Amino acid sequence: MIVLKGISASPGIAIGKVLLYFDESEREAVPSYKIEFHEIESEKQRLELAVESAVDELVEIKTKADGIVRADDGSFLDAHLLMLTDVGLHDKVHREVEETLLNVESALLKVSNQIIAQMNDSSDSYLKERALDIQDVARRLLSHLMYKERKSLEHLTEDVILVTNNLLPSDALVMDKVHIKGIALNGGGRTSHTAILARSFGIPAVLALVSVTSNTLDGKYIIVDGYTGEVIIDPDKKTIDQYEIKKREFQKMESELLTMNQLPAETKDGKLIHLKANIEVKEEVDSVLSHGADGIGLFRSEFLFFRSGDIPSEEEQLETYSQILEMLKGKPVTIRTLDVGGDKLIPKVTGGYEEKNPLLGWRAIRFGLHEKKLLKAQLRALLRSSIFGTLRIMFPMVSGIEELDAVLEILKEVKEELRAEKISFKEDVPVGIMIEVPSAALTSDILAKKVDFFSIGTNDLIQYTIAIDRGNEKVAHMYEPFHLGVLRLVKLVVENAHKEGIPVSMCGEMAGDALASVILLGLGLDEFSMSSFGIPRIKKIIRSVSILEAQELVGTIMEMKSFKDVDKYTTAYMEEKFGIKSFK
Amino acid sequence: MIVLKGISASPGIAIGKVLLYFDESEREAVPSYKIEFHEIESEKQRLELAVESAVDELVEIKTKADGIVRADDGSFLDAHLLMLTDVGLHDKVHREVEETLLNVESALLKVSNQIIAQMNDSSDSYLKERALDIQDVARRLLSHLMYKERKSLEHLTEDVILVTNNLLPSDALVMDKVHIKGIALNGGGRTSHTAILARSFGIPAVLALVSVTSNTLDGKYIIVDGYTGEVIIDPDKKTIDQYEIKKREFQKMESELLTMNQLPAETKDGKLIHLKANIEVKEEVDSVLSHGADGIGLFRSEFLFFRSGDIPSEEEQLETYSQILEMLKGKPVTIRTLDVGGDKLIPKVTGGYEEKNPLLGWRAIRFGLHEKKLLKAQLRALLRSSIFGTLRIMFPMVSGIEELDAVLEILKEVKEELRAEKISFKEDVPVGIMIEVPSAALTSDILAKKVDFFSIGTNDLIQYTIAIDRGNEKVAHMYEPFHLGVLRLVKLVVENAHKEGIPVSMCGEMAGDALASVILLGLGLDEFSMSSFGIPRIKKIIRSVSILEAQELVGTIMEMKSFKDVDKYTTAYMEEKFGIKSFK
Repeated sequence: MIVLKGISASPGIAIGKVLLYFDESEREAVPSYKIEFHEIESEKQRLELAVESAVDELVEIKTKADGIVRADDGSFLDAHLLMLTDVGLHDKVHREVEETLLNVESALLKVSNQIIAQMNDSSDSYLKERALDIQDVARRLLSHLMYKERKSLEHLTEDVILVTNNLLPSDALVMDKVHIKGIALNGGGRTSHTAILARSFGIPAVLALVSVTSNTLDGKYIIVDGYTGEVIIDPDKKTIDQYEIKKREFQKMESELLTMNQLPAETKDGKLIHLKANIEVKEEVDSVLSHGADGIGLFRSEFLFFRSGDIPSEEEQLETYSQILEMLKGKPVTIRTLDVGGDKLIPKVTGGYEEKNPLLGWRAIRFGLHEKKLLKAQLRALLRSSIFGTLRIMFPMVSGIEELDAVLEILKEVKEELRAEKISFKEDVPVGIMIEVPSAALTSDILAKKVDFFSIGTNDLIQYTIAIDRGNEKVAHMYEPFHLGVLRLVKLVVENAHKEGIPVSMCGEMAGDALASVILLGLGLDEFSMSSFGIPRIKKIIRSVSILEAQELVGTIMEMKSFKDVDKYTTAYMEEKFGIKSFK
Repeated sequence: MIVLKGISASPGIAIGKVLLYFDESEREAVPSYKIEFHEIESEKQRLELAVESAVDELVEIKTKADGIVRADDGSFLDAHLLMLTDVGLHDKVHREVEETLLNVESALLKVSNQIIAQMNDSSDSYLKERALDIQDVARRLLSHLMYKERKSLEHLTEDVILVTNNLLPSDALVMDKVHIKGIALNGGGRTSHTAILARSFGIPAVLALVSVTSNTLDGKYIIVDGYTGEVIIDPDKKTIDQYEIKKREFQKMESELLTMNQLPAETKDGKLIHLKANIEVKEEVDSVLSHGADGIGLFRSEFLFFRSGDIPSEEEQLETYSQILEMLKGKPVTIRTLDVGGDKLIPKVTGGYEEKNPLLGWRAIRFGLHEKKLLKAQLRALLRSSIFGTLRIMFPMVSGIEELDAVLEILKEVKEELRAEKISFKEDVPVGIMIEVPSAALTSDILAKKVDFFSIGTNDLIQYTIAIDRGNEKVAHMYEPFHLGVLRLVKLVVENAHKEGIPVSMCGEMAGDALASVILLGLGLDEFSMSSFGIPRIKKIIRSVSILEAQELVGTIMEMKSFKDVDKYTTAYMEEKFGIKSFK
């Protein structure tokens, strides 16, 4: 029995047999051998056949994708088709085979690597981005060259837990959602397209396990715990039984929780809290509504820009924003302007600029204030979409009044332009900022006078306050939401906001953490925004506690010295009061 | 006339003619051509001759270095000599010439690059580190192969301003300190060995100019302003005249300032401030004493570890610490434990661990708490040195009470060990921490109860508080000591410290910034620690102001909203009161 700890990407518990899946065309596996002169022609024919079947495969994926994602998301498939059938590419591989007398796999690998290297050397960010496509296409061809039948994820005959290195979004799109009961990946991140798809398909998934593939075999038993981010390989009978019970309990609880969908998130003494959802793609809206969210607290607009193809135009953005606003039927939707940079690199947007410390670098509003055209186009699209629902605009990473003034000035300019062009928009769209930089939290009294709301982004605020990159395994253990330094900053921000009469939301992971929920209530938060599937759970807690109780808890922990004490006390408190331990 | 902005590395103004110096063996300049078969032997002979003259050169450098730096600093030269005369290396180059019929420069380059690549691939950090030495040696050989006479920096016949890409410490050691009146470099950093040497030789220097070499020619006029970090290429007559005046004014002022060396840094209303020096190497102590410092406020012990060779043993560390303590003759010396990581990488210490955001990574005390053996050896050396003077021990990057408790526990263990071994040390050595992480500043009330002093490290504190890496050119303009968020944190730290009766020092660059000095006084700082050459200037300001006046200034600026306003107001204030503008 081996226990691996990864990142929980999609909740739920899955118990089953491993399907070990490899993208077998990965470089180390490509065979290289000398051929005889008379074999040149047969090698060329092998390429031709591989191209044919790869084309068939892509066309099939494309057809299926049409039903699942919107047309734009599938557009990269067309580009791949063009590359596959490019005669220039075929000629190059032919020549390589003739000149080196090496097998066609090895010739293709060499040729494609050359092209990729040239593209990567280019200073043009668009070309660099295309290098990834060449790689994808080459891999697909190689997989057809090397295996008569590629292991398919599409039609499975029995229930499995998919264990793989990294799942390509194109594979995730077409995988068998009935038989794949859980996913465990070596790589990936919570906001990868694959993670998003897993959540929207309701398949428990754990990512960033690093070595799950090398620790198991096809057909072995495995448990994927999408709540804790744990994966248990080769569990013993007792463990399986425990998890079967846990699974049933959770299923029961989930269905109970869903019965609360239409109830408000109101504390026992009558304070109404807004529970909203964080989303990245339009496809998540169904889940938002079915989990009883009071709206969308954070739409991460950068995910529009991640999609393949060009930078989305004003019109394309307008379409997406309006659709989401319409789907929410009047419930408020907070859309955050492009938060690119840091750990979210989009070469076509930011260029290939490399940074030594990207988290302390050129990102979010810093980028927007520099690339004003891009920011203005987005603000135009946002304002124009405002007539389709209840929009709120939010700016990320504001560090102080100077940046806020600059960005508000640009918003004013955009409004004037729209008025001059007689394009209609709501004049009173509320404007807010993320509080995620310590200097913004520390000067929130000054900032509160100029905006309509704050939203505390705990992920970054914690990282900067304690000076740790939680993606860095050597220091990730220091990421601590209950650090007194963090709690004091949150308290300060809420007090400053309320003095100016504006509400404070929280949209970092802490907002969806059941253990932290009563503390956040006691600190005075007005709104929690989280993954939609977390909403019923937090709602249940809020409905069974009073603000007075929450304030008492806060009063007690704010007197403590170490986060260890806070954690211990809160864990005991939440367990006693809500049996909350099992949530973790 | 071209004005370039770099980093001021050594103060003063130099006006003169450019000496453009290239390390001509840089890769792109290495010639590559086919030779005839009969030329093989003459190529081999060329290598032999180059080795001979390179050996002579190194021996000469070594002799001269003996008088300037201590033996350990020159030890890398011995290693280089061994490599130069390594028969294995010669054989490899010979074979390469024979097999490829390429000239010996090109053969040497190929062979050395292969060795370097192998070493870099190794997982052994020691081998990786040695790759740099191979590179140095290969370059030296190449320069002898390619030029009968290498342009020498050692014996110059007229006054020049040295303009070059990057100055190797070995070149800096032997350069002509009489005729080189100023230095302008494309690369380098304030704490590079070259910068340290420039300061100790009293030569004005500006680093990190990026393109100074490509913007000027030998013999052109150039101005190096080591105060502002500006370099003016091809200045017009008027500019030269202005700078001649500025230079004379500064010289006058400097000599005036030096007359204050024996006077205390006491405000008009009698508050005594401690002005201390930051140092990196023992060689700076003379300058510390001649500038009238009240002690050393920050000895960056990691510079001991930067030096070539093995990790310094307890005994080696003890030697250095005791020497410095003795040289200071009872004046206090604050030695900071190893602050490695972040932008200070020492592969032999931390291994080759690569981080995406090193400034938010595994550094300073985080590293020390993990590598306890290393930390314990350093603490033993420090405690043992305590009997030679007035030592204070300081821990870097503490983020909260949990780390502080852990490190104090280790200190306690080390003391017990020493007692058991009957090794003498002062029991009451004061122990303090750097306040440079926002969470430490925010919980300084808790931390103050456990230590004897604080020292605010503004460089990092500002970077984390505003979430910017000031080494990143895209966001460096946001690095702002007068950000209200920063000033409020400083104020909080001082208040919390004074409540517990402990003093607060500041050892970041802000402490040496004349413009900030009155603000810092008003905020209640007890001690300023800076480059020794900045001390007289700050002393003059402190002696001409009262705490009351300083508090009034702070009262005014703390009511402002933007750092732009603070900066404007303070600039006007300091100019009116102290004519301080010219200091900047």
